[in-house]
Amino acid sequence: MEPFALKNALDRVRATTPLVHCITNYVTVNDCANALLGVGASPIMSDEPLDVEDITSICGGLVLNIGTLNVNTIAGMRAAAAKATALGRPIVLDPVGAGASALRTETASELLDEYGVGVIRGNMSEVKAVSGASVSTRGVDVDPADAVTDATLPEAAAFAKDVASRTGCVVAITGAIDMVADEAHAFAIRNGSPIMGKITGTGCMLSAITGAFAAASEGAPLEGVTAAVACMGVAGQLAAARMEGADGTGSFRTYLLDALSTMDGDMLEAKAAIQEIKEA
Amino acid sequence: MEPFALKNALDRVRATTPLVHCITNYVTVNDCANALLGVGASPIMSDEPLDVEDITSICGGLVLNIGTLNVNTIAGMRAAAAKATALGRPIVLDPVGAGASALRTETASELLDEYGVGVIRGNMSEVKAVSGASVSTRGVDVDPADAVTDATLPEAAAFAKDVASRTGCVVAITGAIDMVADEAHAFAIRNGSPIMGKITGTGCMLSAITGAFAAASEGAPLEGVTAAVACMGVAGQLAAARMEGADGTGSFRTYLLDALSTMDGDMLEAKAAIQEIKEA
Amino acid sequence: MEPFALKNALDRVRATTPLVHCITNYVTVNDCANALLGVGASPIMSDEPLDVEDITSICGGLVLNIGTLNVNTIAGMRAAAAKATALGRPIVLDPVGAGASALRTETASELLDEYGVGVIRGNMSEVKAVSGASVSTRGVDVDPADAVTDATLPEAAAFAKDVASRTGCVVAITGAIDMVADEAHAFAIRNGSPIMGKITGTGCMLSAITGAFAAASEGAPLEGVTAAVACMGVAGQLAAARMEGADGTGSFRTYLLDALSTMDGDMLEAKAAIQEIKEA
Repeated sequence: MEPFALKNALDRVRATTPLVHCITNYVTVNDCANALLGVGASPIMSDEPLDVEDITSICGGLVLNIGTLNVNTIAGMRAAAAKATALGRPIVLDPVGAGASALRTETASELLDEYGVGVIRGNMSEVKAVSGASVSTRGVDVDPADAVTDATLPEAAAFAKDVASRTGCVVAITGAIDMVADEAHAFAIRNGSPIMGKITGTGCMLSAITGAFAAASEGAPLEGVTAAVACMGVAGQLAAARMEGADGTGSFRTYLLDALSTMDGDMLEAKAAIQEIKEA
Repeated sequence: MEPFALKNALDRVRATTPLVHCITNYVTVNDCANALLGVGASPIMSDEPLDVEDITSICGGLVLNIGTLNVNTIAGMRAAAAKATALGRPIVLDPVGAGASALRTETASELLDEYGVGVIRGNMSEVKAVSGASVSTRGVDVDPADAVTDATLPEAAAFAKDVASRTGCVVAITGAIDMVADEAHAFAIRNGSPIMGKITGTGCMLSAITGAFAAASEGAPLEGVTAAVACMGVAGQLAAARMEGADGTGSFRTYLLDALSTMDGDMLEAKAAIQEIKEA
Repeated sequence: MEPFALKNALDRVRATTPLVHCITNYVTVNDCANALLGVGASPIMSDEPLDVEDITSICGGLVLNIGTLNVNTIAGMRAAAAKATALGRPIVLDPVGAGASALRTETASELLDEYGVGVIRGNMSEVKAVSGASVSTRGVDVDPADAVTDATLPEAAAFAKDVASRTGCVVAITGAIDMVADEAHAFAIRNGSPIMGKITGTGCMLSAITGAFAAASEGAPLEGVTAAVACMGVAGQLAAARMEGADGTGSFRTYLLDALSTMDGDMLEAKAAIQEIKEA
């Protein structure tokens, strides 16, 4: 297929400032808002069922993150998802902790089945859980047995494409090696830094900015999602490169937002390490 | 009128450590708490209807921010506002996203109409929405058509004084140029930095510390609110002046809290750029 | 008694990566998650009654922090506490603001009385309130009259041991001088920095990591809790030592997480200042 225009994808976000409606967990919501602002989008958080339809209606995309779901916010997710589906707006689902509790697995699966979700972004254990594959998870962390490695790349690509085919979604499975796929193509993205797993919120931030990239990439969702994943990975590398002296995870978090907010399309294009994975 | 004693207003906050009860959104609540601590006040967050009356009773001021309102927190806002009104404590209303949804507009308007709100702090679109003026908003951002510029200052001043007159509030409308008014006087404040709009929470933090300044400025609310607005603006300038190298919005946020927490009355007084705007 | 093996306590957390289920306030929840990751544990936040039992079941410890309690999260705390009690998992209770409202005092007391809470971590005013001693609090801050000083150390030690004896808990009372006690022994910990009180969340972060230390210190809860308290205090000192130039509380917060995430057992052992307090 044509190479991705990653530079254009980021530039489009910065040029169009998409409003992104997030129903997301309260642990990392501040990071999500700042990540969206960093890449040039504008965040709106709203989870009350009586509020969400109006908010979804004025937004270019919707991000549903079940990290701290409760009965009221689940109702809000349903109402927002129904409205976004009716309006044809892209919906990103982040099934945080799917597999770790029945409520999470069921809620994520219901959202995926009942509404027009366009992108799933999670770790391998979560994507397995939400797609009905047998699964063990370790809380909100990936099960070590699920980690994508060079050895398991072809298998992971086949799995991602199968999930994409069955759900009609672009699927982003992130980890040491990230994987993005639709039903026809799968790409490995080798950016990022191991330090990203030592702070909370890198997955949530990625899901949030994926909403912005999807909103700004109408008609090219695979390119938009791939650009978002590469953008977060490159930001992680830029942040890791600044670590020195007594710096730890507090500084890394600051540097990560710095990188998201200062990255331009050329930097993204130059540093993104993307490889199509073809099955044997 | 007499020039403001901005130095004294900040010094009073630091000297009296007012307790400030915040019912505020979960996106920027951590920033609000740290901003309050930064200027020398003490934050308490509580939104459960069964909890808020006790908390309001021990506090010097109440801040109501509807950024992520839900039916339970709206009930909490009503109960807290009723208690603060009965006790004569200053109430600051931040109508986040008023105009963007019916629930937000109605909730903010009801709080303003039914309780003894003393200060409104929002962007121009939000203040227009909550005061019943015709309005278009762009989510939680100001509508570009509503931006206060040098050319529109007299008109904005007249609007702010009119809202103040009709509501009995001190009105703070913030943007590239900030405006603070009561029914008799309007002031333009030319502090701040454009980077403040690139992180989430600067408006919310301002509303939070306005609660502290109001609590410490009994009998002089216009001075207190003006000092709070100038304090946040000067902090933004100090933060912007530290930006270098790979710094982006993550570092800016850190520097902003640094500036709030290290500013003294003399720095505020020296850097505040306040001008009374008289109508033609 | 035997000297504590503080080094081992921290090393055990890093070696075992305990999952810690937190039902905690939304003000400082991000700091709690990052603090847990910093010391090598893995956080999971879940407060919905329908979700918590599954989450508690896969975790090594449970942290209950009532800082922004509401009726739904109180129900979640009860369900999680019942499950953790049944499974014999350590429960840490942080009675934020107990004494400041009837709901907080009653909720904290009920959790303490009805479930198998193993650790109480609060300031002196909160611990007095939750243990039924007469009390005045100042919001979420300690009443100045309750501050532990060199002069009141023996009295504070006797109080802490008495609370420990009556509740069956390890009791951690933090302030300028920290105190950790079970029914037989009480220790003063002279680490930390006054700047810790100028940011929100240091108490909450300590409660969170105490959950991790407790989960990793089966059979030695007094050692685990003491190590957690010393770890946070040493991190505060390391953070304070980095402050320079225009740094304020924003930078301090970053440095604190840096210190938590880079501290090793040897650093903790070398800097911890622990003294057993024997009654006269």
